[in-house]
Amino acid sequence: MEKIIDFINVNRDRYLSELKALLAIPSISALPAHRDDVARCGEWCADELRRIGLQNVALKPTPGNPVVYGDWLGADGAPTILFYGHYDVQPVDPLGLWESPPFEATVRDGEIYARGAADDKGQIFMHMKAIEAHMKQNGRLPVNIKVILEGEEEVGSTNLDTFIGENKAALAADVVVISDSTMFARGVPSICYGLRGLVYCQIDLRGSATDLHSGSFGGAVANPAFVLAQMIAGMKDRGGHIKVPGFYDEVVPLTEAERQAWATLPFNERQYKKDFGIPKLTGETDYTTLERTWARPTLEVNGLLSGFTGDGAKTVLPAVAMAKISMRLVPNQDPDTIARRFEDYVRKIAPKTVELTVTRMHGGKPWMTAYDNPYVQAAGRAIERGFGKTPVFTREGGSIPVVSTFQEVLGVPAVLFGVALPDDNAHAPNEKLDVGYFHSGIIASALLYDEISRVAK
Amino acid sequence: MEKIIDFINVNRDRYLSELKALLAIPSISALPAHRDDVARCGEWCADELRRIGLQNVALKPTPGNPVVYGDWLGADGAPTILFYGHYDVQPVDPLGLWESPPFEATVRDGEIYARGAADDKGQIFMHMKAIEAHMKQNGRLPVNIKVILEGEEEVGSTNLDTFIGENKAALAADVVVISDSTMFARGVPSICYGLRGLVYCQIDLRGSATDLHSGSFGGAVANPAFVLAQMIAGMKDRGGHIKVPGFYDEVVPLTEAERQAWATLPFNERQYKKDFGIPKLTGETDYTTLERTWARPTLEVNGLLSGFTGDGAKTVLPAVAMAKISMRLVPNQDPDTIARRFEDYVRKIAPKTVELTVTRMHGGKPWMTAYDNPYVQAAGRAIERGFGKTPVFTREGGSIPVVSTFQEVLGVPAVLFGVALPDDNAHAPNEKLDVGYFHSGIIASALLYDEISRVAK
Repeated sequence: MEKIIDFINVNRDRYLSELKALLAIPSISALPAHRDDVARCGEWCADELRRIGLQNVALKPTPGNPVVYGDWLGADGAPTILFYGHYDVQPVDPLGLWESPPFEATVRDGEIYARGAADDKGQIFMHMKAIEAHMKQNGRLPVNIKVILEGEEEVGSTNLDTFIGENKAALAADVVVISDSTMFARGVPSICYGLRGLVYCQIDLRGSATDLHSGSFGGAVANPAFVLAQMIAGMKDRGGHIKVPGFYDEVVPLTEAERQAWATLPFNERQYKKDFGIPKLTGETDYTTLERTWARPTLEVNGLLSGFTGDGAKTVLPAVAMAKISMRLVPNQDPDTIARRFEDYVRKIAPKTVELTVTRMHGGKPWMTAYDNPYVQAAGRAIERGFGKTPVFTREGGSIPVVSTFQEVLGVPAVLFGVALPDDNAHAPNEKLDVGYFHSGIIASALLYDEISRVAK
Repeated sequence: MEKIIDFINVNRDRYLSELKALLAIPSISALPAHRDDVARCGEWCADELRRIGLQNVALKPTPGNPVVYGDWLGADGAPTILFYGHYDVQPVDPLGLWESPPFEATVRDGEIYARGAADDKGQIFMHMKAIEAHMKQNGRLPVNIKVILEGEEEVGSTNLDTFIGENKAALAADVVVISDSTMFARGVPSICYGLRGLVYCQIDLRGSATDLHSGSFGGAVANPAFVLAQMIAGMKDRGGHIKVPGFYDEVVPLTEAERQAWATLPFNERQYKKDFGIPKLTGETDYTTLERTWARPTLEVNGLLSGFTGDGAKTVLPAVAMAKISMRLVPNQDPDTIARRFEDYVRKIAPKTVELTVTRMHGGKPWMTAYDNPYVQAAGRAIERGFGKTPVFTREGGSIPVVSTFQEVLGVPAVLFGVALPDDNAHAPNEKLDVGYFHSGIIASALLYDEISRVAK
């Protein structure tokens, strides 16, 4: 392994300039205007997989954006890794809050700033470079690997479940490796064994055919913005509990062991509030901040729009009001069941003064695995060697719906091997990745293949 | 008067084409990008006042948009009318809902469609043409007249109070005439004797320094969109009563006489709902629709904005949320007092989990006069002769703050002499004015000067 690590250390600068090229492609899957950029990014990734020595590289078509595939299967008898990542990114608005252009990667104070730096281009590129290092130095990998890179993760992986289902045999593996998560904190390498699921809906209300004059009509006609506020307020009680009937029925309670383990983690509420500019923490009563974000389901308003929102004043009684609302789910909540219960509840609380439309956008199942699984432990050793520090075992509040699909369809465990930081602004302006962690991540990934090669199949 | 009316009838087509030129100027006072258009519109109006024979025409500067002034004071011994109107218009968004471009006036089915057609360009132009007809046929007016046209009515008449205060002597008159209101209904000419006042505020909440990932942070950090919804929902009770402490303290109750008179008006709830596409009427309990809009104060959400509002899904926990909220006031509510009580209440109900900013945008006092005032009765006779039908005496839900200023500063009664219709879409897409009513309005205005000339000063 030493000459591989040497090779990685020598190529440090090249890795960064190559990553910048990948980050320059605005592959925003949520916006139709960026369709060509998403396609271009998929091709860039395929070219890169060929360059680093993978075989059978292809853009596998789906009804949406293609899946980039490549493999190297020359390690007879060794385990097979299915590596999953995504080449699409989140939208960038509000653009005005970015300190440097989101698609011109800029290094400041040891961080590389760009949309996709952490989520997920920086982390998939880390594995590309680890594979390259093995291939350049040894002409081979110690394990078999199948790489799939998706172009629709940020829009709910709409077509990936079908893709996996239809390519079950071709994707067969012993373990799934994903680097799309964060460490617990700076200096605390982490292996994640649980993720929350997601249900994302849009609510549209209409109170009149057109916008009306708020003087002539105000007081006699329902205001859909006000009705929407009432409905949203009615979705949680004062203790932060979600009022959708049956919402908590399938929630697996936190174990006492988890609560105790998490209580020992180096979490500083004062610093957390300071880092993110939060006046005061809040949430469901009787749970800590980590428990609230890792192990409890939530309901959040992701967007609100109604009436006049420009500068100044317009005395309009809006005709329509819109809210985007998502729920994070925990084991064993099922997205379809929860979406149905949510929609039933919304229909129940909507007054007859407005026309209601509920649109389900996307969803994903929550996931959890045992952290004494040998692959999870191999990942722990690799990250310990790469970062020189014992890792912690955590859960995460985010959703990577494909993880539970891999578990269900392929029947294999997954390892979440992430090196981003919680303040890397994934999904927000000024997304970034620590340059040093990117580099250590390449080393840790190279070591991961080595560690996994020694796990008994 | 006969030859004046003949003149008006002969010039019908010319009036319409001249009005189209005025409606072509996008004088949107709320949008800084249209500053030059507003200025151009003021100049257009001044030119027109000169053309029709007024004297001392000038653009009177204010810290904002200028007031257009012109007068004719040759009717010794006759009363003096102060005519007030406004040449600025509302914004046009959402533009996509307009069936013809808002600044290319288009006649369809006897209606002229354009922003400003009813509010207020069509109605000020009606008086310009009435003055022109008197001047062309008689070389004089039967009354003295002072015309002031404001360019900031749609942004709260910010500078008009000061202008009136500073020009008190120059603006001295016996009656104020304003045509910026609607008839009660098609075929029901109306004189309005009361208006609601206005307080307009913006609420901004911040829950974190930047947008956060709703997975990683959701459940532990206040969501300002959710908090805003809770706060808005908390502003009214189930009966539609506003919960701001002291809000109703100065409200003058409806008289039994008014309630009975309004109950006889030809108001068809079924048709009203159909006309405006309203699923079900609502409002404060124990009041009819007319009472709710004319004589009761309201609180409305005019705009809501937070987080991701584009197509698709973005799993963001918004950093900020904004609401524009206005209250319509009735006699004797004072805008400053109500604004202060509202702000105090908002500060009280805002949780410590968010940073709150309340910005007061503008306001105006409610107004009411006696409908047996001789000038009001003169206006009733003029509109009866112009439209061939006995008028009704009503109040209105909208606000024209300047009316109460005239009453307070100049100490004269006002006459609201409006010929727009309630479904003319003032402040909404597809604003329009009935072409026949525009024409009858010119005749009625010409008759109004005649009627007023015979009122004993």
